[in-house]
Amino acid sequence: MDRTAEYRATARALGLDAVILVPGPNFTRLTGQAYGSHERPMLIAIPAEGEPAAIVPNLELGSFAALNFEGAVFDWRDQDGYEAAFAALAAHMPLASAAVEGQVMRVFVHHALAGAYPGLRLVDAEKPISALRLKKTPDEVAMLERAIRTSEAALEEVLSQVQVGQTEKEVESRLVQALFAHGADALAFSPIVAAGTNSAKPHAHARDDYRIQAGDALLLDFGAALGGFNADITRTVFVGHADDHAREVYDTVLRANLAGHEVTRPGVTAHEIDDAVTSVLEASPFADRIRTKTGHGLGREVHEAPYIMRGNHEVLEPGCVFTNEPGLYDLSAFGVRIEDDILVTEDGCRSLTTFPKDLRVVG
Amino acid sequence: MDRTAEYRATARALGLDAVILVPGPNFTRLTGQAYGSHERPMLIAIPAEGEPAAIVPNLELGSFAALNFEGAVFDWRDQDGYEAAFAALAAHMPLASAAVEGQVMRVFVHHALAGAYPGLRLVDAEKPISALRLKKTPDEVAMLERAIRTSEAALEEVLSQVQVGQTEKEVESRLVQALFAHGADALAFSPIVAAGTNSAKPHAHARDDYRIQAGDALLLDFGAALGGFNADITRTVFVGHADDHAREVYDTVLRANLAGHEVTRPGVTAHEIDDAVTSVLEASPFADRIRTKTGHGLGREVHEAPYIMRGNHEVLEPGCVFTNEPGLYDLSAFGVRIEDDILVTEDGCRSLTTFPKDLRVVG
Repeated sequence: MDRTAEYRATARALGLDAVILVPGPNFTRLTGQAYGSHERPMLIAIPAEGEPAAIVPNLELGSFAALNFEGAVFDWRDQDGYEAAFAALAAHMPLASAAVEGQVMRVFVHHALAGAYPGLRLVDAEKPISALRLKKTPDEVAMLERAIRTSEAALEEVLSQVQVGQTEKEVESRLVQALFAHGADALAFSPIVAAGTNSAKPHAHARDDYRIQAGDALLLDFGAALGGFNADITRTVFVGHADDHAREVYDTVLRANLAGHEVTRPGVTAHEIDDAVTSVLEASPFADRIRTKTGHGLGREVHEAPYIMRGNHEVLEPGCVFTNEPGLYDLSAFGVRIEDDILVTEDGCRSLTTFPKDLRVVG
Repeated sequence: MDRTAEYRATARALGLDAVILVPGPNFTRLTGQAYGSHERPMLIAIPAEGEPAAIVPNLELGSFAALNFEGAVFDWRDQDGYEAAFAALAAHMPLASAAVEGQVMRVFVHHALAGAYPGLRLVDAEKPISALRLKKTPDEVAMLERAIRTSEAALEEVLSQVQVGQTEKEVESRLVQALFAHGADALAFSPIVAAGTNSAKPHAHARDDYRIQAGDALLLDFGAALGGFNADITRTVFVGHADDHAREVYDTVLRANLAGHEVTRPGVTAHEIDDAVTSVLEASPFADRIRTKTGHGLGREVHEAPYIMRGNHEVLEPGCVFTNEPGLYDLSAFGVRIEDDILVTEDGCRSLTTFPKDLRVVG
């Protein structure tokens, strides 16, 4: 719990009385332990001055004790409800304002806080709180790399077995099994395995009634989770053969992807990366197939800051990890996306993803 | 979208101007499509009178169009932000109050609503909104049963291969691969695979540095997700041999589990089920090993209403599905939990879980 000071400093910098964290990526970063909150409120309040305090479901007291938390703990049991624990916290730690994670805290916790602290000013400080996750430590980068290696090993295994006539669902099932066989703790997200026109849909679901045909594009967007960190990789291959048009589209996306690598160094803004990548797509004959921004930060969450898009003038510093995932999507034919996970280094950048990007024909 | 009328009726019954749903189990029930919201707000507002309206990230417009949504749609793009879409909704659909899902809606959406609707009274109506999911339709029960059969097939495959000397992590990896090989779309939750003293911890993580020993209890708590529905099953077996003490503890938990089956019929309360189950444990020599309530509702969410615990006098009706999962946990030795998924029928109940519960020695 030696990161408490960082959140205390955040509360001070925001001029608020406390930071209140609920189970999620920041809570895990602080405690070193992943909790699922479900229907049971749980939180850690870190005041700008003084010791933190926690509200903990009685069921979790045992695992919480192992954290050596240095502050008051107010537990509650299912049969009693949680109002008394919130009231006890309010008596113990008076607050007039608090910074919370707006994209993690749910309304029922918000209401419980408002009930215990009448007039509490609750500020959505998702961005400054989560900003503490922007710069990955060497240990965190190493864990991300393990998740990425695991993902790449599974991808190679699956691509070497793709055949015309398999369904998307079959390929997806092999991919998921390979991810766990190669050591994944969990899936970073439900994989996208999309062939033919499905490859042009941003969030396609694998079909069990479509058999992969010769000439199809096959897009795989997936990742292993390991030690709480998530890989996120996309490769698009062609089954049987790739015609000249497919090659031209693929080459355009690859050039856009490479432009993202080239421009990335400490001090670059998210805007500048997206601009470099998207400009390549815009200058091509396929500009009308652009559908998405270039990428997003990656770490304890699959989608986190920095969001790599025009208009976001956030500056990237060494230790930042983001996805570089340009794509071109023709809903009447096929889509191509190539996605790498990029680490900003002291003097440039390094792709943590090392899976080859040359156009590949499988099956 | 023919379930819109149910949510309209909920708004009226609560005396509120609208129900506002965000991506999650109720949203999926309404639309038939699973959306992940991440950092992008998306919602459907169903007024007590008149047509619904939606706020949709531009990226999702294509999939949303397929829903044949009969109302105004306000989309927004990443580079522009979502404030204008919320303002447009407020201009289109004036509201003074709204019912929301307090355990699903996050604070950033709450704040966006509050910004667009000054003075809006936002009521946490998680319970009445989600109550529409309490009674499962025959199609929903069939999907749950498919998820449970898949889980049971995977369990049998794994148990038949357990050997002394395997790590928990190895067994977990086999279990997960078997779940997908048998047709799971996803994991209902991260499985618990816990041997020896780890089996007594409520949320144990599988270890890669502990090898299963002869005489160990081995607890597996897991489930497949299929078609948006979740199985949740626990079996505890013994590796190599089970001594008399282990048999006595196991028999106690099994009698508690069976007491839950016996008492369940339409009209029973959640309190009465927990009381019947827990009373068996309390009457045993192992009453100090009780750690949890009897169970929880199961369906689109792994944990949902009704919560099967003393003090909850909610009446169970036909179509209700819940977990019956008594356990006894001795942190210095081992834990036993036996968990079935129970459907309340017109004249009693039926266990959707059919995996045998006789004490089993494996390896």
